[in-house]
Amino acid sequence: MNRQVVLVSRPHGIPQAEHFAIRSAPLPTLQPGQALVRNRYLSVDPAMRGWVNAAANYADPVAIGAVMRAFAAGEVIASRNDALPQGTRVMGMLGWQDYAVTDGSDLRRIVREDDLPLSLSLGVLGINGLTAYFALRTLGQPAAGDTVVVSTAAGAVGSIVGQLAKQAGCRVVGIAGGAEKCRLCISEFGYDAALDYHADDLGAALDAACPDGIDVYFDNTAGRISDAVLPRIRRHARIIVCGTASVASWDPWPQGPRVERHLLNKAARMAGFLVWDYEDRYDEAIAALAPLVRSGALRYREEIQQGLQCAPGAIADLYAGRNLGKRLIQLEDPS
Amino acid sequence: MNRQVVLVSRPHGIPQAEHFAIRSAPLPTLQPGQALVRNRYLSVDPAMRGWVNAAANYADPVAIGAVMRAFAAGEVIASRNDALPQGTRVMGMLGWQDYAVTDGSDLRRIVREDDLPLSLSLGVLGINGLTAYFALRTLGQPAAGDTVVVSTAAGAVGSIVGQLAKQAGCRVVGIAGGAEKCRLCISEFGYDAALDYHADDLGAALDAACPDGIDVYFDNTAGRISDAVLPRIRRHARIIVCGTASVASWDPWPQGPRVERHLLNKAARMAGFLVWDYEDRYDEAIAALAPLVRSGALRYREEIQQGLQCAPGAIADLYAGRNLGKRLIQLEDPS
Repeated sequence: MNRQVVLVSRPHGIPQAEHFAIRSAPLPTLQPGQALVRNRYLSVDPAMRGWVNAAANYADPVAIGAVMRAFAAGEVIASRNDALPQGTRVMGMLGWQDYAVTDGSDLRRIVREDDLPLSLSLGVLGINGLTAYFALRTLGQPAAGDTVVVSTAAGAVGSIVGQLAKQAGCRVVGIAGGAEKCRLCISEFGYDAALDYHADDLGAALDAACPDGIDVYFDNTAGRISDAVLPRIRRHARIIVCGTASVASWDPWPQGPRVERHLLNKAARMAGFLVWDYEDRYDEAIAALAPLVRSGALRYREEIQQGLQCAPGAIADLYAGRNLGKRLIQLEDPS
Repeated sequence: MNRQVVLVSRPHGIPQAEHFAIRSAPLPTLQPGQALVRNRYLSVDPAMRGWVNAAANYADPVAIGAVMRAFAAGEVIASRNDALPQGTRVMGMLGWQDYAVTDGSDLRRIVREDDLPLSLSLGVLGINGLTAYFALRTLGQPAAGDTVVVSTAAGAVGSIVGQLAKQAGCRVVGIAGGAEKCRLCISEFGYDAALDYHADDLGAALDAACPDGIDVYFDNTAGRISDAVLPRIRRHARIIVCGTASVASWDPWPQGPRVERHLLNKAARMAGFLVWDYEDRYDEAIAALAPLVRSGALRYREEIQQGLQCAPGAIADLYAGRNLGKRLIQLEDPS
């Protein structure tokens, strides 16, 4: 039997545990071309909020009654697909479930870093690392001496962005929620400065930390953090919109200070990033990131919960900001 | 004597005639390296509103008591600069005045199209044409088959953008204020469709005119026109912020629907354009545009007023939307 986390009602805003249920379904018989993957790690990502909302997203929402869409990593335990022999380690859109049947189309990577933990294929060597790598390089284009500001700076994506920007010779300023995350930014991830967005005056803190203004803003939050950053951008600044974590709901659509005049006065640009656009280049990023992980030059944190039963409440937990690392769910061995 | 239009008080919002005064000043003696230009045409541009406002702009504001910053075109009538011999036709930041003394640094172009009217060097072969050409090509990157929406579509910049986009094989939809301008869009400038933003429901009109969504939005207005366009952009759309004509004041800073989610969901980008960034490439644009003007493939309209006394009220007039072409002021022969 295959335990699956299914969506049972559509949330307005951030999905809570009660929007999901766990059911058991029989494993189907493999058809030619299919492989059976035993999921070992389930990913919990901020983007999953959007995947269950009815509107304001880049993909069709998960249907009521369907297995929750999610990244997962596992290994092939049975196969009728020559490209996916038994024992292959894979990462892909395999869902919040114990087992997934795949014809390969929902896989994102064959995980070949056999010397590294499989869990990394969902974080620093997964969508988080790929997002940080491509978004910063292609949209951020940091140059040595630039000032780079990162929101959710201690998070699974932000922490990688900060380190890659630092390696590019930038001054790197993180924005995070709370003193503990700010400490992590400095001690673990090498930020030059870290600002607590709970602080009274984020604008004044940005002025002090970025006296010459901001060249690159890697934005995972939108909302009032972005509103404090935008007036401080420099000529030809690049703003990367990677997430909107601070906006609880887009229905009704929220208002904020208009951005047009900032962009015009500074001949700056603001661009949304979707990692799917770079699928044919994932190997390039992994080839760059894996050596940094092995050498310790790229640090990461994981927070691994045990058992499928943790999944339903995991997205709400993520948005509560309580995690201090990439949130994963490890699946126990099947009974 | 040199008649000059000077700024006498700082407007809040759109500058009116009473913010300016006309004074006469003696012509200075030319120093080595200087040339004396007799201005023949003064330009009236939407950007001038920003140049006199205290904040929210890309350059220092015009000082109280100073000659109004403006593009002008004229000819050198006396010279102590070998690069600017008498008779040279020039265009540059020569101010709202009869005569300008220049060392060449405030010139933007030597006007070499002797077969064409000098006035064009302020419009279709001036900042308007240069803006349309570079902004559309470098930021808009229109591809054949794209749907391009242009706001202030019948205006001095918009009308050129529309024609260049059409020549690039795009479906081109204009947004303009009033039936007369919409007629001009179709009959003069070759738009495939023209929408009156005074219409009841601009969103529905955009849906009808752009059934597949919008690939490029050339934005001269910001405000509610942009708010209707943003939800209708396609994947990888490019939004060019060239002006904010519909926002009467940026003090207090206006609010609007947040753009982050649109940009993220569509992996789209929104970029401000300043033509100053392309000064070293102006000749390239003129070489492309002048043949189109000569052949009639690029159409333009001018509205020329007579006499310096028209200048003080000209910006307010422009923002009232009453003009149907590039607004210029022709200077009478000096007495």
